[in-house]
Amino acid sequence: MFATNGILTLTTDFGTQDGYVAAMKGVMMGINPDLKLVDVSHHVAPHDIMEGAFILRNVAEAFPAGTVHLAVVDPGVGSERKPIAMRHHNQLFVGPDNGLFSLLLAGEEAEQVVVLDQPRFWRQDDVSATFHGRDIFAPIAARLASGLSLSSAGTPVDQIKSLLWALPISDEQGIQGWVVHIDRFGNCITNITRDQFDAHRQERDFKCYAGSSIIASNSETYSDVEPGEATVLFNSQDSLEIAIHQGSASQMLDIRKGAPVNILFMDDKS
Amino acid sequence: MFATNGILTLTTDFGTQDGYVAAMKGVMMGINPDLKLVDVSHHVAPHDIMEGAFILRNVAEAFPAGTVHLAVVDPGVGSERKPIAMRHHNQLFVGPDNGLFSLLLAGEEAEQVVVLDQPRFWRQDDVSATFHGRDIFAPIAARLASGLSLSSAGTPVDQIKSLLWALPISDEQGIQGWVVHIDRFGNCITNITRDQFDAHRQERDFKCYAGSSIIASNSETYSDVEPGEATVLFNSQDSLEIAIHQGSASQMLDIRKGAPVNILFMDDKS
Amino acid sequence: MFATNGILTLTTDFGTQDGYVAAMKGVMMGINPDLKLVDVSHHVAPHDIMEGAFILRNVAEAFPAGTVHLAVVDPGVGSERKPIAMRHHNQLFVGPDNGLFSLLLAGEEAEQVVVLDQPRFWRQDDVSATFHGRDIFAPIAARLASGLSLSSAGTPVDQIKSLLWALPISDEQGIQGWVVHIDRFGNCITNITRDQFDAHRQERDFKCYAGSSIIASNSETYSDVEPGEATVLFNSQDSLEIAIHQGSASQMLDIRKGAPVNILFMDDKS
Repeated sequence: MFATNGILTLTTDFGTQDGYVAAMKGVMMGINPDLKLVDVSHHVAPHDIMEGAFILRNVAEAFPAGTVHLAVVDPGVGSERKPIAMRHHNQLFVGPDNGLFSLLLAGEEAEQVVVLDQPRFWRQDDVSATFHGRDIFAPIAARLASGLSLSSAGTPVDQIKSLLWALPISDEQGIQGWVVHIDRFGNCITNITRDQFDAHRQERDFKCYAGSSIIASNSETYSDVEPGEATVLFNSQDSLEIAIHQGSASQMLDIRKGAPVNILFMDDKS
Repeated sequence: MFATNGILTLTTDFGTQDGYVAAMKGVMMGINPDLKLVDVSHHVAPHDIMEGAFILRNVAEAFPAGTVHLAVVDPGVGSERKPIAMRHHNQLFVGPDNGLFSLLLAGEEAEQVVVLDQPRFWRQDDVSATFHGRDIFAPIAARLASGLSLSSAGTPVDQIKSLLWALPISDEQGIQGWVVHIDRFGNCITNITRDQFDAHRQERDFKCYAGSSIIASNSETYSDVEPGEATVLFNSQDSLEIAIHQGSASQMLDIRKGAPVNILFMDDKS
Repeated sequence: MFATNGILTLTTDFGTQDGYVAAMKGVMMGINPDLKLVDVSHHVAPHDIMEGAFILRNVAEAFPAGTVHLAVVDPGVGSERKPIAMRHHNQLFVGPDNGLFSLLLAGEEAEQVVVLDQPRFWRQDDVSATFHGRDIFAPIAARLASGLSLSSAGTPVDQIKSLLWALPISDEQGIQGWVVHIDRFGNCITNITRDQFDAHRQERDFKCYAGSSIIASNSETYSDVEPGEATVLFNSQDSLEIAIHQGSASQMLDIRKGAPVNILFMDDKS
């Protein structure tokens, strides 16, 4: 039996300067002043659905069952893209159906998806054509977190939009992936997972080619190498990451988002 | 009968790096740990009273009756500008009387205004000459949100300071306003309202001159035009806005805050 | 008898873009959804332990007794630096023992310090080598704020790591300190305290040398001087600060963090 827990997180590309996020919170607290609101990020690059999807995927699993996640990165606001809500791993997700939730599913089916087509649960004053975050998604998320059922909020649909999130290419010799996110410390996070890496490695040594650098050092944590030295490690989400101890790998190795990363496994004789 | 609801919002130009906002929250939670604190923005441009006034005006109406709004953009801290609190549309506002609240009123009279002259409700440890946000405004806001009456907090006054917030100029041919805010997406928001526009338009076509561009496209929402195309629309606060679908109008059309915007209505023959 | 009050503050260098802070909050709310979480700053310069220590010291005293402060600026994550928790002035502090808490103590002994060596109170799923904030510090802080005793959380130790935080040098003629922080407004905050200044001044006039400027103006608050004029004052934490009324002292006087500041006291004849 699914029940929400009153926790409601927010992930947007609204920034924190203009007050747009606060307007959503005002609407939600008008519906239920006891909601426990938590900001995930409002600094998703403007209109960057993939970055929003990446951040949301990484953070959601840290929250308890029953949490509602509101996510609005919505370059197509006012167009035909559908507003949806879904249940996945005993949490709810509310936002535009534009791929923002596709990384969460990782190929699984959502437990339940509805298209939000019940205006009686939206903001009553009036619904603007440009700010569905405040006028549709915020009131729906607040009501779901307060006990409204998914099946009351909308009409069931079978599936959500998937982003083309290319998987790394691999063969006997190695793996080619790329940098999907650069964090505040300049760590370069790739789409290569620990499972995939281990399956191909077969205990061989390896070299990592990224930008114009070759990184042969593999470690468990940043401080396993000297300050200023580059290393390859698996981060707290089990993604392969290129890092420099107490430095910015992105700056010092000149690696940008989207850069290819090649892992070459070394046979005994090499 | 007016009553507060325990929600207290914060709008400042303090930024979020230095801990100044947290110091205010610590003082407020020492007075009442059950306050529901909501950040509106702490990234108002330093000392930009007009920007603070603009953001606060846009956000306040999204919050329920009984909310207390604390706003501190206070270049004159320690000078003769008066600390005030006021009631307007069943919400309370606390901060310096320097014009920060004048856009909210929009020409109306406040329901009640007091000058904060009761030091027994301020921070007891000591009141610094430079941080009235922490030492006067925060404790007063926390106490008002916890049930203190306006009339206990200070002495009644008749009016607050008004900023010269020039209205657009208009005649039979058109309207001249200007850009009052550029948001994170590069949307250029003007001081021309939908009501004013409709009153002058009389069903005529129009052209919008802004920077070195002429924008003839008028739409309900961003996605009514092609990606990269400029349009004029009324945003979620019913202000005329110049926007580019999935782009930054400010950057692409080189429009800055303060830039004039001319609307020219087209007679049938033109 | 010490008791926590349910308030838990967070100070990190994680930024607010990547969702790392939200992951910590998710873990904490899974332990106790009723915690009152307050962000102090997540914009400490990456790996800048001293800046984190400075901000935390300034903010902690504004919070009531019983508050728990979680602080993670942790360039040595995964290395031999110890995770600790301590009690000081009836508040608790949780984080790495790398000097982050040494400014708080200001030479005093902590009331109680423990090394966190009880993994049963950590995150149970798995403890990553790179994100102790989420996996060790957040769960410990949440449990302490929910009633766990310090003595249950770890093993007592005598002292914490002290940063070399050089005190200003002084003699009969003057004081030499330096700029330890530049805030959002460009105010240059030094390590010279009001007490130290008053002890040496003995009612003499003084000049302040900073960068290439000589500032002879001494005031109680910013607005005691004309807009654009520089002044020396004691700020809301009683530290000597170089400021420009409605301007950025750092930019206009070209003063950076770390710059020396000399106070020269003037004898009657000079």
